[in-house]
Amino acid sequence: MFEIIPIKGGVNAPQGFYADGVSAGLKPPLPNGAPALDVAFLYSEDVLKPFTLFTSNRFQAAPITHFKHFIKGKESNFVLINTKNANAMTGERGVQDVCDILSSLTQKFPFIQNPIMSSTGVIGQYLPKEKIIASFASFDFNAKCENAHTRAADAIRTTDAFSKEIALRVRLDNGESFCIGAMAKGAGMIQPALATMLCFITTDALVPQNEGDRILRECAKTSFNAISVDGDMSTNDSVFLFANGRSGVYNEAAFKEALKMIMHKLATDMVRDGEGSTKLVAFEVCGARDESQAICAAKALTNSLLVKTAIYGEDPNWGRIASTIGASGVECNEESLRIAFDSVVVFDRGQICFDEENEARAAAVMEQESFRITCDLGIGEGHFVAYGCDLGYRYIDINADYRS
Amino acid sequence: MFEIIPIKGGVNAPQGFYADGVSAGLKPPLPNGAPALDVAFLYSEDVLKPFTLFTSNRFQAAPITHFKHFIKGKESNFVLINTKNANAMTGERGVQDVCDILSSLTQKFPFIQNPIMSSTGVIGQYLPKEKIIASFASFDFNAKCENAHTRAADAIRTTDAFSKEIALRVRLDNGESFCIGAMAKGAGMIQPALATMLCFITTDALVPQNEGDRILRECAKTSFNAISVDGDMSTNDSVFLFANGRSGVYNEAAFKEALKMIMHKLATDMVRDGEGSTKLVAFEVCGARDESQAICAAKALTNSLLVKTAIYGEDPNWGRIASTIGASGVECNEESLRIAFDSVVVFDRGQICFDEENEARAAAVMEQESFRITCDLGIGEGHFVAYGCDLGYRYIDINADYRS
Repeated sequence: MFEIIPIKGGVNAPQGFYADGVSAGLKPPLPNGAPALDVAFLYSEDVLKPFTLFTSNRFQAAPITHFKHFIKGKESNFVLINTKNANAMTGERGVQDVCDILSSLTQKFPFIQNPIMSSTGVIGQYLPKEKIIASFASFDFNAKCENAHTRAADAIRTTDAFSKEIALRVRLDNGESFCIGAMAKGAGMIQPALATMLCFITTDALVPQNEGDRILRECAKTSFNAISVDGDMSTNDSVFLFANGRSGVYNEAAFKEALKMIMHKLATDMVRDGEGSTKLVAFEVCGARDESQAICAAKALTNSLLVKTAIYGEDPNWGRIASTIGASGVECNEESLRIAFDSVVVFDRGQICFDEENEARAAAVMEQESFRITCDLGIGEGHFVAYGCDLGYRYIDINADYRS
Repeated sequence: MFEIIPIKGGVNAPQGFYADGVSAGLKPPLPNGAPALDVAFLYSEDVLKPFTLFTSNRFQAAPITHFKHFIKGKESNFVLINTKNANAMTGERGVQDVCDILSSLTQKFPFIQNPIMSSTGVIGQYLPKEKIIASFASFDFNAKCENAHTRAADAIRTTDAFSKEIALRVRLDNGESFCIGAMAKGAGMIQPALATMLCFITTDALVPQNEGDRILRECAKTSFNAISVDGDMSTNDSVFLFANGRSGVYNEAAFKEALKMIMHKLATDMVRDGEGSTKLVAFEVCGARDESQAICAAKALTNSLLVKTAIYGEDPNWGRIASTIGASGVECNEESLRIAFDSVVVFDRGQICFDEENEARAAAVMEQESFRITCDLGIGEGHFVAYGCDLGYRYIDINADYRS
């Protein structure tokens, strides 16, 4: 067995990694006049091949194209991240911009090898190259500042109301241990909003080179992919896992468990991000014909505007839930369906259990910041939990003119 | 050739039909204290087999189950329509309620044969049978009141900001003519909102019994189905076409053209319905590999929250449009894609055409109440136009607590 303990340090917690955030003038100054952080770097003392997961969007942003053409399969020790500009739909010029920026970077810092770029922000504008290159002057790899990881996590935010990071120490029974740290960006209502999700994970665990990609995909299934419809991703979505093996320790079960915890925490943080949502709802579908049908129904619920607005209004309108499941195309019937808000059953295999008392209890469940809606289709063994949020006025405030 | 002329009278325009609306106390009284209309009937002097299109939702409401079990294939001369209660997810009791109500109806009015019921409103509550039955006392089939059709169209509204009806006379070259009339309910953002869509069409054209269903389906494809994702329908969606043949006249091309106009008008009325939206946008996708890919991309655009909020904010954020197309899974690439707001091209086969002047012109297009966004994928001949609207504060106002 093993033990998992939360620790401080974010992506800088595992030995051998150092991330920091600086200001390149891409974001407007803060209300107090101070420059906002908008460029981050993640430096690894060792060169290594990162494990990756990229967007399935047909239009992949220039930094992803650059990675696939020039970096994939090579060892790297650096990621440069900018916000406010996604460098997407920018064609060959967009890729050339990445090359130019990264060649300035390696000229200035010759120890950087095969650097990777990662971008998030508005689609369809060319990168402000000069500003980003000028910001390299503020990079300080020797400061080893204790707060550097929080600055990095802050710098990669776009519409995020809060920064998202976490670090865990995994202690095996024999006393050996390793660390995993991570930071991410992505604000509530990822889907179908297509807001970019970026995630950077570091670890000193000795992850076998031929297993990292598979483990990353497995853990994404119940975390990042549980907040996004299959294939419905932004042009820039990326997950990077950097493993330098410095601890000399590895245990697959323990590593997977910790990685799942990390990705689940970051994914639900994205859903609950205050800028767009006030509630985090776990939509659990069980008893589906198979897992793919459970995924289909659960994701349909997270994407239903009527369900989202009912959650915002704290209205236990279970009819909208039933109708959404019925419209999702999965096998279901009234006689075997059960719907519950936490433990309050409102529809039980053909019977409406929605008297005044039960309605009040269901409404009380919905007043919580976080709760579960369970739909048992009563047909098979398929099970999936998708995470969604409500849709309120703030979402429109933010998105009616995101570019400004 | 033929001529199509708008006329008055709604569903009552064709000879032999009479619809009216009454109050059963299902809706709260109007602000001025007068009772609101909430029950409508459509009476046909001739018994006939209606042509129908029903929801593909797995949970079909009790009135639809009742129709399929007891009426389908038989001749009928009556539809009873109620609002505020969908009689959906109500199981056997829901169907029994329909039987009880309709048997009271035929007892009171013995000339009514095989009556049909149609409901819209909240899902998961049993019908207020007594109120509906009591309203029969106000039915007056002999009044032949000129405004009866507007009362019927008013009575079937739920969250609709305005009632939706239309009537056309089709005059053939030989001087013969026939009429089509229609009324509908359904408020903006039908999809993915799952608000119920009901539509009742009457005609005195001599529509061949074996062709009506096919023609209805064909015309729905570019109208009602162009405002809704395939298969993603509410529990109650229904379209009825009653043709009594009294004019003795029929011409398929002319009939289809007029029916298309009627269904297109009612469908776009639903999208533009002021309660939830301020703009009507035609999303035209052309140059897709085939029609199914064009449909897929066009509907993805109508359903993207980020696109909807950008439209509300009159922000020509074409990057969100590109990203949504890329996420929809259709074949596409930057080098062949063109995006235009009306005639203002903002992205042209790999080139961003979004200087200050063009951005201002695109923004001016979006200030209109109605405009077109064209995406030419530049790959094949697939073409489809889907109709969508913006997402603003009013939508949340209405839907955060629709049941109240």
